[in-house]
Amino acid sequence: MTKQKATNIVWHPGAVTRADREELNGHRGCTVWLTGLSGSGKSTIAVALEKELWGRGVRAYILDGDNIRHGLNKNLGFSPTDRTENIRRIGEVAKLFTDAGMVALTAFISPYRADRDQVRAIMRPGDFIEVFVDCPVETCEERDVKGLYKKARAGEIPEFTGVSAPYEPPLQPELVIRTRDQSVEASVAQILACLEQRGLIPRA
Amino acid sequence: MTKQKATNIVWHPGAVTRADREELNGHRGCTVWLTGLSGSGKSTIAVALEKELWGRGVRAYILDGDNIRHGLNKNLGFSPTDRTENIRRIGEVAKLFTDAGMVALTAFISPYRADRDQVRAIMRPGDFIEVFVDCPVETCEERDVKGLYKKARAGEIPEFTGVSAPYEPPLQPELVIRTRDQSVEASVAQILACLEQRGLIPRA
Repeated sequence: MTKQKATNIVWHPGAVTRADREELNGHRGCTVWLTGLSGSGKSTIAVALEKELWGRGVRAYILDGDNIRHGLNKNLGFSPTDRTENIRRIGEVAKLFTDAGMVALTAFISPYRADRDQVRAIMRPGDFIEVFVDCPVETCEERDVKGLYKKARAGEIPEFTGVSAPYEPPLQPELVIRTRDQSVEASVAQILACLEQRGLIPRA
Repeated sequence: MTKQKATNIVWHPGAVTRADREELNGHRGCTVWLTGLSGSGKSTIAVALEKELWGRGVRAYILDGDNIRHGLNKNLGFSPTDRTENIRRIGEVAKLFTDAGMVALTAFISPYRADRDQVRAIMRPGDFIEVFVDCPVETCEERDVKGLYKKARAGEIPEFTGVSAPYEPPLQPELVIRTRDQSVEASVAQILACLEQRGLIPRA
């Protein structure tokens, strides 16, 4: 009954596996987890990276505040428990996308090491690419694109990461990107090179 | 910087859109929501359907008890509140997969009309394909592949749908499949025809 339309597809009996999906896509599934302060450039990099990947025929999808906080996690607040549950759910969804053969791009501050390590722990080895978007808080605060630092300094946002709440940098991230000193394009190129080197996407 | 590798891709400025992803995939994103009693054939149909779709180069992904209950929803039980939250989260994840340009296949009993309608409500019109896997409870109980009906009749499983808890059939599903009287292949063919007719996947 199955009509073979896609090319380069080898038929296996039984259910469709992750390997089957990756074969169809021509690339691996994985999660690129961007972590860093507000204003460090996570979302900007994710958007530019998705564009580059799309241009190469790599299926990627961004998980960010826009599509998570108003949807899956709309019943979560900002208490410590809720922050942990927020990251846990995002990790589980990223895992599903990874298993589906897609490149999940997550752009959340995700300030706590334990929460990020917990996501790493549920993934298969090699599936979780932790990218530390490293930018001094002074630079983030100068940019202050969303005006959040100003509000935080005025005491209008309690427990704001980098101001009144801690950020715990990764100890052994797969990649560190220093966004104070380089362009968005250079940051994207760094991530693409990392994904190529790990055999997750074909070389350009 | 973008190298155009995929064919038939038209460049748009700005972020990658859902339409861009669908163009790359050669099919639309949508959610095929299978609902019906335990033993009605939801999972069997989902697995066979995914295989057919894969053979046609259509990217699909099954959300079911295996990858949801042990992951994203492992902190949920079977109380009414938790059942509703279970379906809500699955709906939100299916929405993300749909937005990512994939065909999400869900295989959950999802007995309550209000819960399913809530999922429909968060989706764009046309994205949610509710498939009622219709099979008399007597037939499901005769099959009893997992031995759950026997346990439910023995009182070992409280509030078992169809035995001691209600199943509310869809009032206006996009498709009804009567699995007592037809093969898995015929059921899959019915769903494929429905997706083709709606322009969600190319005609075979």
